[in-house]
Amino acid sequence: MTAGKPITCRAAIAWEAGKPLSIETVEVAPPKAGEVRIKIVATGVCHTDAYTLSGADSEGVFPVIFGHEGGGIVESVGEGVTSGRGLMPDGTSRFTCNGKSIFHYMGCSTFSEYTVVCEVSVAKITQEAPLEKVCLLGCGITTGYGAATRTAKVQKGDSVAIFGLGGVGLSVVQGAKQAGATTIIGVDVNSKKEKLAKEMGCTLFVNSKELPAGKTIQAHLVDITDGGLDYTFDCTGNVHVMRAALEACHKGWGESIIIGVAAAGQEIATRPFQLVTGRVWRGSAFGGVKGRTELPGLVQDYLNGKIKIDEFITHNFGLDDINKAFEAMHDGDCIRAIITY
Amino acid sequence: MTAGKPITCRAAIAWEAGKPLSIETVEVAPPKAGEVRIKIVATGVCHTDAYTLSGADSEGVFPVIFGHEGGGIVESVGEGVTSGRGLMPDGTSRFTCNGKSIFHYMGCSTFSEYTVVCEVSVAKITQEAPLEKVCLLGCGITTGYGAATRTAKVQKGDSVAIFGLGGVGLSVVQGAKQAGATTIIGVDVNSKKEKLAKEMGCTLFVNSKELPAGKTIQAHLVDITDGGLDYTFDCTGNVHVMRAALEACHKGWGESIIIGVAAAGQEIATRPFQLVTGRVWRGSAFGGVKGRTELPGLVQDYLNGKIKIDEFITHNFGLDDINKAFEAMHDGDCIRAIITY
Repeated sequence: MTAGKPITCRAAIAWEAGKPLSIETVEVAPPKAGEVRIKIVATGVCHTDAYTLSGADSEGVFPVIFGHEGGGIVESVGEGVTSGRGLMPDGTSRFTCNGKSIFHYMGCSTFSEYTVVCEVSVAKITQEAPLEKVCLLGCGITTGYGAATRTAKVQKGDSVAIFGLGGVGLSVVQGAKQAGATTIIGVDVNSKKEKLAKEMGCTLFVNSKELPAGKTIQAHLVDITDGGLDYTFDCTGNVHVMRAALEACHKGWGESIIIGVAAAGQEIATRPFQLVTGRVWRGSAFGGVKGRTELPGLVQDYLNGKIKIDEFITHNFGLDDINKAFEAMHDGDCIRAIITY
Repeated sequence: MTAGKPITCRAAIAWEAGKPLSIETVEVAPPKAGEVRIKIVATGVCHTDAYTLSGADSEGVFPVIFGHEGGGIVESVGEGVTSGRGLMPDGTSRFTCNGKSIFHYMGCSTFSEYTVVCEVSVAKITQEAPLEKVCLLGCGITTGYGAATRTAKVQKGDSVAIFGLGGVGLSVVQGAKQAGATTIIGVDVNSKKEKLAKEMGCTLFVNSKELPAGKTIQAHLVDITDGGLDYTFDCTGNVHVMRAALEACHKGWGESIIIGVAAAGQEIATRPFQLVTGRVWRGSAFGGVKGRTELPGLVQDYLNGKIKIDEFITHNFGLDDINKAFEAMHDGDCIRAIITY
């Protein structure tokens, strides 16, 4: 333990939007009251990191250490706290680089060998869990799995469609399959996704760029499902896809769940008649899962084989190669890249 | 009974969009299989009639006999049926005027002394019920009352806001009050509505044209309710109000219900973040009430004093003065006009 002293370590700093991350030596201050300093063992690289890095996120602040899908070991703890944008609740940062203060990100900043987070942001999990796998439960997999099982509460025999088959979308698929859905339609623009989608539980794959002439994706799905789906999920962040997902729901009872994060200022739209005729539009954040109390159980579900994670890890990098992880996200074969320290 | 023979009677015909209704002598054909001919005793005049008459309804057909909030007595019945726009399920009309076929409206056409409707469109109610009152349960009052009690399922202690305090909105108010809501905020642009709104159960009236400087109605409601409402209801048909109603909901759980009918081609919009942070957008048609099985119970609720109707009837006219009823709807004092035959 080095409680009370700063730790010098390596971290990936985003100095400004739109530029590659830079591996720097940073000072990580000791945790204050209600905070915990953590040695990060592994972290996923999520599209939201790339979104904020791109500069499209109006809430983004720089310089910053990204990363919010991390697994690690508590290094030291502070004492008994309230939230600043890119800062700890007391309004200050625990990161400095060459004397310059660096912002936190989503209360996590896992792209650093050490980070300081609030105690309430930490979920204690079994020591048996491989952190380089279960770190993905820190965001993407839990978000998708929970959206199906907690937000939508998919039931046996239900029909569902998932738009966008990345790590989140494929986790909706596994959640829906476990809940007993009998029709699980995966929709993506990339047919390379079909194989893994079917391994995860999709009963049908639809490439939304290869539709019958003159058909929208929503019209096509309504056609092939005898009136539309019980539940649809947007995992793309594209507001036009969000509309298609809503309109692919069955009138009278169909519900569409928005999971993807849209670019700043973009809006969803539809005719109100879509809702008046019985469809429901809702959203899901972190799959409706309570991190501190429920994440340990999801880790156990992974250890018991009930939740799949390994299949999603297509790329592994060290911290020095973190920019390659961001490049890999634009590759159609990449589901999730892991950084191990 | 005149079963099998046409009946000649008076009806209000809309020959074309945007013109006053014309009182004409019409022939009402006998009911075919699965149909019922009804002597209309009284009918409400609803904003949807005025909407279609205006020409803004892309589904509107002319010439037509409007009216869909009727109470009457079965005159004769046909035999054992499937829907055409403005026509009976067999694709023909039962109305002629000087040999010209006249369209039906919403399967009702209650602006006629006699009408023919499908058996499945008729709810049998107790003979004790005053038809010149309970006819309003045929649309507006049931729609609002049901939206609160069946669609939203308002619970004891909930907070709700109702946008638009006409017959539908005030019925949401009475439904919410009966369900035990403790905060019931009525929102309208006309302060004349405040008195009746409070009699029906509103705990607060807000004139959305008289807000603190620089505040939107949603921001004002969020301010005065410590974060927003559990349920909001749009009873205006204005897509901008629908958005305000959604955004006035509390994040995490607030639900907004669209009841009003928007003009053709108009769309609702919001930032998807509004849903991702836990708000739900849904709609309600006829308050989620099953007409044939549940309407008799609502009539009984009226007779037992549980549902108020009389307070809503501000104007009464004979058929000859039906155009005055349409004019009255633009009057700020008018909640509902009744036509009695």
